[in-house]
Amino acid sequence: MNLQPLQARVAELAEARLAELGIADQRLADAMHYGLMNGGKRLRPYLVYATMDALNAEHAVADCAAVALEMIHSYSLVHDDLPAMDDDDLRRGKPTCHIAFDEATAILAGDALLNGAYEVLASAKELSEKQRLQLVQVLGRAAGSAGMVGGQAIDINNVGKSMTVEQLEHMHLHKTGALIRAAVQMGAICAAKNTDTSITEALDKYAKAVGLAFQVQDDILDIEGDTAVLGKQQGADEALKKPTYPSLLGLEGARTRAKVLVDEAIQALAGLPGDTSTLESLARYIIERDH
Amino acid sequence: MNLQPLQARVAELAEARLAELGIADQRLADAMHYGLMNGGKRLRPYLVYATMDALNAEHAVADCAAVALEMIHSYSLVHDDLPAMDDDDLRRGKPTCHIAFDEATAILAGDALLNGAYEVLASAKELSEKQRLQLVQVLGRAAGSAGMVGGQAIDINNVGKSMTVEQLEHMHLHKTGALIRAAVQMGAICAAKNTDTSITEALDKYAKAVGLAFQVQDDILDIEGDTAVLGKQQGADEALKKPTYPSLLGLEGARTRAKVLVDEAIQALAGLPGDTSTLESLARYIIERDH
Repeated sequence: MNLQPLQARVAELAEARLAELGIADQRLADAMHYGLMNGGKRLRPYLVYATMDALNAEHAVADCAAVALEMIHSYSLVHDDLPAMDDDDLRRGKPTCHIAFDEATAILAGDALLNGAYEVLASAKELSEKQRLQLVQVLGRAAGSAGMVGGQAIDINNVGKSMTVEQLEHMHLHKTGALIRAAVQMGAICAAKNTDTSITEALDKYAKAVGLAFQVQDDILDIEGDTAVLGKQQGADEALKKPTYPSLLGLEGARTRAKVLVDEAIQALAGLPGDTSTLESLARYIIERDH
Repeated sequence: MNLQPLQARVAELAEARLAELGIADQRLADAMHYGLMNGGKRLRPYLVYATMDALNAEHAVADCAAVALEMIHSYSLVHDDLPAMDDDDLRRGKPTCHIAFDEATAILAGDALLNGAYEVLASAKELSEKQRLQLVQVLGRAAGSAGMVGGQAIDINNVGKSMTVEQLEHMHLHKTGALIRAAVQMGAICAAKNTDTSITEALDKYAKAVGLAFQVQDDILDIEGDTAVLGKQQGADEALKKPTYPSLLGLEGARTRAKVLVDEAIQALAGLPGDTSTLESLARYIIERDH
């Protein structure tokens, strides 16, 4: 799957939206730019646009959702990497934000990207007021204490403790799953198809399975991946004694689980009206990727 | 000025809204509660409700704005107090959030309060979709890189450097002024009076002056206040070599500046249609307070 054209599009949009936000301090602007433009996979924007394909809708009306999701995702990585959190020096092969700048600037850059995401959604003139408001609601729920941040808290409060597979899944459904599910929901809102429950249910089933498969594969790569290809320290989870799918299911068990989830995701696509090939490629890519 | 009835109202509302957010982790819930319910002055909610009085509007329609502003203000204090930022152990006479919990939980609790503020605004059913969206826009602009976070960045990047009064004012207009100006703007939106420019200009003139006066008084209290009454370490600015109004204008000069600003604020109130006595008391309180 060639993600490059999409990555270039998202980079261009993100740069333009950053400029529109207005940033009162140059060092803050540089750190926000660094956190947002550091060559991520852009999985969440990809999901948004692939959802537009599956709903026969134009990509352009979902630009604000793609950028806002990436701003939220980027802020969460900047904060996650902080010494008090995962204490990571390396992200996507480059120094993390607090290493490249300093801790205080990294905290503020994260906060600014977080606020910025909501501003981007609220000021998306190509959408109706109702749509923009729905996007803010969905993102707020998915990113906040009931979603991603809640999952991060479960994560840090369980380092070194044992977890069942169910508890691990519960954590991931919050920590990474919530934002991935928000991506397809936000796509449906931008496509004005969010009131058709057969569509939203199919999309959610797909996103829930893809989100978990992504996490299973992340855990597998932490064991057998190559630090240079991963762009982050291989073995980091094990060093932190974090519960993982391979530690609970074994490496083969984890591989099987990822495959079953991807099959579930692809089956769910039958309920959608448009071209589902990009959503399908994305599901397959999740378990074929090496970083 | 008796702030207690208002403080009780805000506490009750904030507690109810926190419960509605949904919080996936108990320790995160406790830390969010700790950060939000720690006995602050509730200046921003007070400004919102006083604005409603001045516009002949009901308080209840502005509840979401009051709570959202306090969630944003609380998150900013939790993050500001972190070791990498101001490294404060004491806030309002109690251990700061990262001391009472831990740094990682404090970072996440701040992030969750930040996301939560936007969710509270977006789900305020007592307001029209247009109003809710305007509130998100105004808050996003005021809290983010063009406002408060931008001002915090200017602040941390100028510790130990000399500043002119103009530069100091520029910083404060962002760091604290933006959210204070947002409070009256958000009040005007909730009262559906935000399209009347004579009203919004009078309110903004008032809020800009009050916000600066508040900061001048804060700097004065840092020199002559009592740690026990302040609830935070007296002399903290001086110890950090932060530029302050007294360091630039002298203590008498700073007192005069605060008085001139409060007079300016009160004069601006003549342009408003309703009962401006609470806005006036608030302006006087700013320079009479001892904490």
